[in-house]
Amino acid sequence: MSTRTWLRVLVACTAAIVAGADEGMWLFSDPPLKLLREKYGFTPPTGWMEHLQRSSVRFNNGGSGSFASADGLVVTNHHVASDCIQKLSTEGRDYIATGFHARSRSEEGKCPDLELNLLVSIEDVTARVQAAVKLGASTAEAEKARRAAMNTLEKESLDKTGLRSDVVTLYNGGRYHLYRYKKYTDVRLVFAPEKAIAFFGGDPDNFEYPRYCLDVSFFRVYESDKPAVIRDYLKWNAGGAREGELVLISGHPGRTDRMDTVAHLEFLRDRRNPYVLDLLRRREVLLRTFSERSVENARRAQDELFSYQNSRKAYLGMQAGLQDPAVMKLKRAEEEALRAKVMSSAKLKQAYGDAWAQVEAALKAWDRVLVERALLELNHGFDSELFGIARGLLRLAEETSKPNAERLREYAEAGLESLKQQLFSEAPVYADFETVKLSDSLSMLMEKLGARHELIEKALAGRSPRECAAELVQGTRLREVAFRKRLAEGGRKAIGASADPVIALALLVDPAARAARKAYEEQVEEPLRQAYAKLANARFEVLGTAGYPDATFTLRLSVGQVKDFEEGGKRIAWATTLGGAYQHAQAHENREPFALPPGWVEGKARLKLDTPFNFVSTNDSVGGNSGSPVVNRQGEFVGIIFDGNLDSLVWDYIYTEEQARAISVHAAGILEGLRAIYRAEALVGELTGVGR
Amino acid sequence: MSTRTWLRVLVACTAAIVAGADEGMWLFSDPPLKLLREKYGFTPPTGWMEHLQRSSVRFNNGGSGSFASADGLVVTNHHVASDCIQKLSTEGRDYIATGFHARSRSEEGKCPDLELNLLVSIEDVTARVQAAVKLGASTAEAEKARRAAMNTLEKESLDKTGLRSDVVTLYNGGRYHLYRYKKYTDVRLVFAPEKAIAFFGGDPDNFEYPRYCLDVSFFRVYESDKPAVIRDYLKWNAGGAREGELVLISGHPGRTDRMDTVAHLEFLRDRRNPYVLDLLRRREVLLRTFSERSVENARRAQDELFSYQNSRKAYLGMQAGLQDPAVMKLKRAEEEALRAKVMSSAKLKQAYGDAWAQVEAALKAWDRVLVERALLELNHGFDSELFGIARGLLRLAEETSKPNAERLREYAEAGLESLKQQLFSEAPVYADFETVKLSDSLSMLMEKLGARHELIEKALAGRSPRECAAELVQGTRLREVAFRKRLAEGGRKAIGASADPVIALALLVDPAARAARKAYEEQVEEPLRQAYAKLANARFEVLGTAGYPDATFTLRLSVGQVKDFEEGGKRIAWATTLGGAYQHAQAHENREPFALPPGWVEGKARLKLDTPFNFVSTNDSVGGNSGSPVVNRQGEFVGIIFDGNLDSLVWDYIYTEEQARAISVHAAGILEGLRAIYRAEALVGELTGVGR
Repeated sequence: MSTRTWLRVLVACTAAIVAGADEGMWLFSDPPLKLLREKYGFTPPTGWMEHLQRSSVRFNNGGSGSFASADGLVVTNHHVASDCIQKLSTEGRDYIATGFHARSRSEEGKCPDLELNLLVSIEDVTARVQAAVKLGASTAEAEKARRAAMNTLEKESLDKTGLRSDVVTLYNGGRYHLYRYKKYTDVRLVFAPEKAIAFFGGDPDNFEYPRYCLDVSFFRVYESDKPAVIRDYLKWNAGGAREGELVLISGHPGRTDRMDTVAHLEFLRDRRNPYVLDLLRRREVLLRTFSERSVENARRAQDELFSYQNSRKAYLGMQAGLQDPAVMKLKRAEEEALRAKVMSSAKLKQAYGDAWAQVEAALKAWDRVLVERALLELNHGFDSELFGIARGLLRLAEETSKPNAERLREYAEAGLESLKQQLFSEAPVYADFETVKLSDSLSMLMEKLGARHELIEKALAGRSPRECAAELVQGTRLREVAFRKRLAEGGRKAIGASADPVIALALLVDPAARAARKAYEEQVEEPLRQAYAKLANARFEVLGTAGYPDATFTLRLSVGQVKDFEEGGKRIAWATTLGGAYQHAQAHENREPFALPPGWVEGKARLKLDTPFNFVSTNDSVGGNSGSPVVNRQGEFVGIIFDGNLDSLVWDYIYTEEQARAISVHAAGILEGLRAIYRAEALVGELTGVGR
Repeated sequence: MSTRTWLRVLVACTAAIVAGADEGMWLFSDPPLKLLREKYGFTPPTGWMEHLQRSSVRFNNGGSGSFASADGLVVTNHHVASDCIQKLSTEGRDYIATGFHARSRSEEGKCPDLELNLLVSIEDVTARVQAAVKLGASTAEAEKARRAAMNTLEKESLDKTGLRSDVVTLYNGGRYHLYRYKKYTDVRLVFAPEKAIAFFGGDPDNFEYPRYCLDVSFFRVYESDKPAVIRDYLKWNAGGAREGELVLISGHPGRTDRMDTVAHLEFLRDRRNPYVLDLLRRREVLLRTFSERSVENARRAQDELFSYQNSRKAYLGMQAGLQDPAVMKLKRAEEEALRAKVMSSAKLKQAYGDAWAQVEAALKAWDRVLVERALLELNHGFDSELFGIARGLLRLAEETSKPNAERLREYAEAGLESLKQQLFSEAPVYADFETVKLSDSLSMLMEKLGARHELIEKALAGRSPRECAAELVQGTRLREVAFRKRLAEGGRKAIGASADPVIALALLVDPAARAARKAYEEQVEEPLRQAYAKLANARFEVLGTAGYPDATFTLRLSVGQVKDFEEGGKRIAWATTLGGAYQHAQAHENREPFALPPGWVEGKARLKLDTPFNFVSTNDSVGGNSGSPVVNRQGEFVGIIFDGNLDSLVWDYIYTEEQARAISVHAAGILEGLRAIYRAEALVGELTGVGR
């Protein structure tokens, strides 16, 4: 197997790779200047880095993007845009299937609940967050004090700057930074291709390479009902990425576990991942069977179904990495090296020597609350938009009646506006789909908590999960946004007095859910933060460098090269072409998901078929990076990342570059598709600066 | 919800329903004459019952069927036949997709490993089996003694009669019967329709009604290379079933749990079913992703994938029943009534009073071995044909070197011939498919046993599950039947000395697998048998009747009425028509799995569209009954059962007839399809006796 090969190589030359590898999801406040200079002979000119930072945006539904014109045009992946595309669609008007193309600004479609964030500044607030925790405090006290400090810091910053202000935990607790964002909440859909080409090859081709996907969509941000005026946007390089060249990506990797101890990785492998994978498969099968009943069902479930399938494939890849003894051997060797250094110095041992044991103790606590927290606090037992809204309204009322410092993090003053945008979203909620999801998740809750659990008996009240779900969804008024707003205005009293059955369920569940959360925060999260803070500091002292922190869905820079790779003894070319898509379709008898959309079949003759379509590079990246711009030395847009190959899935735990690659849509392929297939002259003009 | 309604009705009038219901999977040695007489005014004439018995056959891959002509013609469901159809198919010649039609006897396709059993006689051997177990024996001793008695009884019977002889455990241990079968092992495929019409509506319509499926196929049994001469076969009634009439089915229901105690049902609900459902979903997702990669992959996996999807839907229905408090309330009431009667008599209490506690103790033991036994002994951790063959060869060598009485049940002398037919089957084994399945199941094994389990470390030997699976499948020679036969001839010594990596894995795993099996048989199965024997006897004494035993994949008779039902306030007609299939396809935009095969589209004008296609009846039935003939008072074939509706899935635990229905293909619809679409004149002639 190919996986094994690169691991052997890796074990043999770890040191060499660490020195020369394109590894790292670097902070913009601490960019990899040495790597760029020494490996690529590149020193970014003054303002280069800031321009890239200010051209990058975060999508609050979990992706990245970048500005593409002075008139607020934003480019991202189709699979990042699909949440909004789905919400703009209705029965009989399925923009996911047909694509969307606003021929004029008045046709641009306003997303009901999309928020884009532009990172404006970074401030190190480690000292203040750490100082809040008194020496000798219990973990419960420490969690409370740290939360208070973070809530307060954010509120102060918001009051002072008017900007969205988030305290971010870096190095798993080693550092705390305050990130300030400009928010865009009026975001309108400009262009999306058909899913059949955006996600050509579907789940079978997901995380594979070669690929042929136009996984791209365009939005425009508005301010005061006019296109926002954007100073920093990326110039579109019509030629796109070239083989061998240095490319950088600027985006928001969601989460990695590279600093985790071996015991922690084993916990993920043996306990967390199996639970998650069973859940993902359960949801996938449920949504697929729902989808197959009718075309309209399929339309309603498609975005969520994709998300489960995507996660399932990603988790399987991650789990394969953790189940590979060669990977674990490598991680163990790294850990042993650090531990030996720490233990060989009395000072280091005194300061950090107990960190590994602290992690293990926290993992034991995690194991105890893993499933209950997932079911009750993460709503795995109540898989329903309506329940989520009810929970949100209830907690909004309860938390906002407390001083800001004491609130749950997501109800702190600084985030309320964004939260309300979600809670009062006009996005459609389908009763039949809700019933199916809630019914199955209540059944799971019953299985996992036990049929005689007090909460189950009270929630079901003698009904089966199916009956209970049907009655809840039929009986609630929470699909009406006006009803939600009235409840929110009425506060805790109105909510407590409400006869709405889903509100009643949220009231019933919340004490247990909060208790599970409290146990997790006090016995798992805070102890892990403390232990990892020690390990981070130990690394700083032993290795003499901070390196880069694990991913946190905040802006990072990664360095790489456009580069082919070998698989099963075969060179896989750095790029595919538009023409290759037609061959790939034919090789699969043009059957779904390998059927090209009618417009592509009809328009083939107009396309330059040798135009690059997708390409690979060594840029370190994970989920959340979807939609990140790929830029060249000139800071020009040469592509947009949308995936990684199967070998890259282990990047959650360890970076390798022998076979693992990030996969991007090529800037030239995008332009060619827009021009020849979609005849999107205005959009092409705006991107290339022609005709403006 | 509809489910709730009928349960309420049921709770209110249990007594009435028990008296008048069509409940029961009756033994042919104890048919429901009273029910037939009192409810339907029908007394089967002399020989009627024996003729039906001798016209019925069992498919060893898990279904039922019946003789349809004097020349050995057998009719069953397409989904029972599909195992053989799949094995006769090759790359580029997919009979599942295209259907199969032998226009002459020489074109009939011989199945590589199909065996049909015709029940010849039934003998009560309870006394001998029970006498073998000494008073005061430990459960380990009891298990051994009982097994020896059963193996010996079977061998004696085989030697005496030359017939396949199986000792069957009835009433969960209350009775033991010796069933003697005539075997047919030369079974040839005569006719199968396209899967698109056999399983029209696919997984979405599975267990639903109305339905439009030609779920039927024909085989012919041969003896000495000539069509077998059959005395007892069912006359085909060309008009088929009529609304309201009494119908009987004769088939092999696989398994029910109606006599289980409440604690036992709770165990299934809380422990066994969740494990099984997670496994089924895991396999379903795995096989689906494999299938989607290419048309050929889909062909290879289709029969297995269907089987997982079918089981998943069935288990979900069963689980919904157990998770319905109304169902459990009913079961609890039944149990309490029996327990009260037992406890109120000193004699009964002394004899049977501890049975419920014995069941609970056995369930605790079951819980301890549930997962390990499934992984190791039921091969859930080694999902591979090749591993199954290796295990079979190893145990064949080990067990046949022991005296017959001491062998594991399936290696007892009486069953060896049938076993070898499986082991030396020429059915194709695909390396890529094997690798994917084995890799995922090894990964599951690692998750469930723990990565540091000795067995895992030895089996993987430093490789990842994926690498290990690839090396095993590439390295083995077990795909060659000649190699298997040589190993079998060489016995235990040749197997022990074999360098084959899959044989080596079987050798490694077997001690632990046998230990898990032993624990299950001694601590779970035997104690449950003893406890349920008490409960069965208690029921006989208290209720004054044996009733019918839980299903055991042996021949049973069930009584019912062709009858419509109400769902969501709507009458659902007793039958659908051939024309309805076209409307159903249109309502789903003719998209898979609602696309009719080309032959049906083209041949529509030739069909009498108002011919009945599928119909429902109240006949008590479960999985294993698939392919059972439906006969009228004259003992004529009027239809063939192929499914039950969603409401019938609770029949595993409790019979109800308000909404639950068995679903059959109508005899007239079959004939009309054969005539008008397939122009199968010879087959129609043979069925109707015309032109013979």
